[in-house]
Amino acid sequence: MSSSAAPLFERVALIGIGLIGSSLARRIRRDRLADAIVCAARSEATAARALALGLVDQAGTDAAASVAGADLVILCSPVGTYAEIAAAIGPLLKPGAIVSDVGSVKQCVIRDVGPCLPDGVSLVPAHPVAGTEHSGPDAGFPELFEGRWCILTPPPGTDPQAIERVAALWRCCGALIEVMEPAHHDRVLAITSHLPHLIAYTIVGTAVDLEEATRSEVIKFSAGGFRDFTRIAASDPVMWRDIFLNNREAVLEIIQRFSEDLTALQRAIRWGEGDKLEELFTRTRAIRRSIIDVKQA
Amino acid sequence: MSSSAAPLFERVALIGIGLIGSSLARRIRRDRLADAIVCAARSEATAARALALGLVDQAGTDAAASVAGADLVILCSPVGTYAEIAAAIGPLLKPGAIVSDVGSVKQCVIRDVGPCLPDGVSLVPAHPVAGTEHSGPDAGFPELFEGRWCILTPPPGTDPQAIERVAALWRCCGALIEVMEPAHHDRVLAITSHLPHLIAYTIVGTAVDLEEATRSEVIKFSAGGFRDFTRIAASDPVMWRDIFLNNREAVLEIIQRFSEDLTALQRAIRWGEGDKLEELFTRTRAIRRSIIDVKQA
Repeated sequence: MSSSAAPLFERVALIGIGLIGSSLARRIRRDRLADAIVCAARSEATAARALALGLVDQAGTDAAASVAGADLVILCSPVGTYAEIAAAIGPLLKPGAIVSDVGSVKQCVIRDVGPCLPDGVSLVPAHPVAGTEHSGPDAGFPELFEGRWCILTPPPGTDPQAIERVAALWRCCGALIEVMEPAHHDRVLAITSHLPHLIAYTIVGTAVDLEEATRSEVIKFSAGGFRDFTRIAASDPVMWRDIFLNNREAVLEIIQRFSEDLTALQRAIRWGEGDKLEELFTRTRAIRRSIIDVKQA
Repeated sequence: MSSSAAPLFERVALIGIGLIGSSLARRIRRDRLADAIVCAARSEATAARALALGLVDQAGTDAAASVAGADLVILCSPVGTYAEIAAAIGPLLKPGAIVSDVGSVKQCVIRDVGPCLPDGVSLVPAHPVAGTEHSGPDAGFPELFEGRWCILTPPPGTDPQAIERVAALWRCCGALIEVMEPAHHDRVLAITSHLPHLIAYTIVGTAVDLEEATRSEVIKFSAGGFRDFTRIAASDPVMWRDIFLNNREAVLEIIQRFSEDLTALQRAIRWGEGDKLEELFTRTRAIRRSIIDVKQA
């Protein structure tokens, strides 16, 4: 957008200023998408860091105080914190304000945040499908969302103007917008994101539990594939704990499918069924091509 | 090495000219590590491509013919082809020649190649722990081995000079050398490389089997972690089939450990045991740091 256009929002409050929150703050600042940005961090240290980095105009640790006068409030903390934050900020939200979030699970947002919002405040849950293995306010960068999808899951009856304003913000951050039903989002992301993280945590955990001598060799020779998993398994522990606890059914369902498929491969290896292995390995190669074709590689 | 030094070898024969073989050829050419390079490819088309790319001085499809006069023969084809190749080339090897390979499994090299070699020919199995998801003679590049480990697994009694000459070649390719007992190599690589690939193939296979509508969404929203697995699962199908079939015991053993660990996590999710999840996710994060510290990230 041109710098002469009016900002999309007057005052944006970010609750949480980690990788996603700070990337958003950097982009909003850089492109003047709001007149003012405030944030509430969990710790005094993080709030001070956000100010020192020049990410926000005001920073504190009181979520309720941070939302005063905000026309957009975005929860950027682990999804397990939403219920408590929503209860605290609900009574202080400005009439007409929009509440959104950036969490990787969406049904729980509607369950935990929805009931705490007063009439006249809109809830537009959002999930920018982007990230790195780094955490905290120093880890963010304004281009994080460029070319990535941001999925909106507004509950039925949400004010279309509120949905459009949140979509406009993400478009200005470089993201592509998709609107999805929350339960469907949670099933799709269980496959594309939650299972891969769980598997990466598992395999790295399996290696951590090896005797010390072997473990140091695993680290030394990790370039054979293992190191890619360690990058994923370096993601924020609390954030991921909350994702698994809040998308339990969909994650358990897909683990079950995965385990069956792994057992079939295990059996093929045991019985020396080379054809079965080669056939699967050839089919999976095609998916990579599809991802490159849709520019998400 | 300086260009005025004598080449390490007179004539190097590469049997197979895919990602690894062609990277090696490019490096040997670039740094004049041998007077001549010849290759034997599986197909006429690949042999012609290797010549067109200027990778080798001579190329054909007859492995036996390619080793005539070679003082170093390196098998760069899938490990499942070794027994047949060794039987074909054995009688034609020059006295004093060294036979090596680049396979990801090492006990099977000694089992399949060793018995075919005449007296006076040394076997020095090698495994450069490096690669990409791309295959074929076009995929190679001379820097592929830079800073990566190359593991040598010579059987007991191998001529120390032969080991040193192979080590020198890999050092000139930028690799770091480790000498290891073959069975130990196969156990360590089962964890650092074979299990990660098997898991990646499995998870991508699980997604491939989803109904069409969901599958296209999985591709679209793959940036949440899934796409990293698709890269690994795009590796050469025949090469990986042979690795699993030839490292069966070690791979089955580590799949078993992995499955137990996954079941434990699955149970923690089902029963809402957040502490267990967070504790594991915090431990796995430390491994990433170790890999960065040893410069293999």
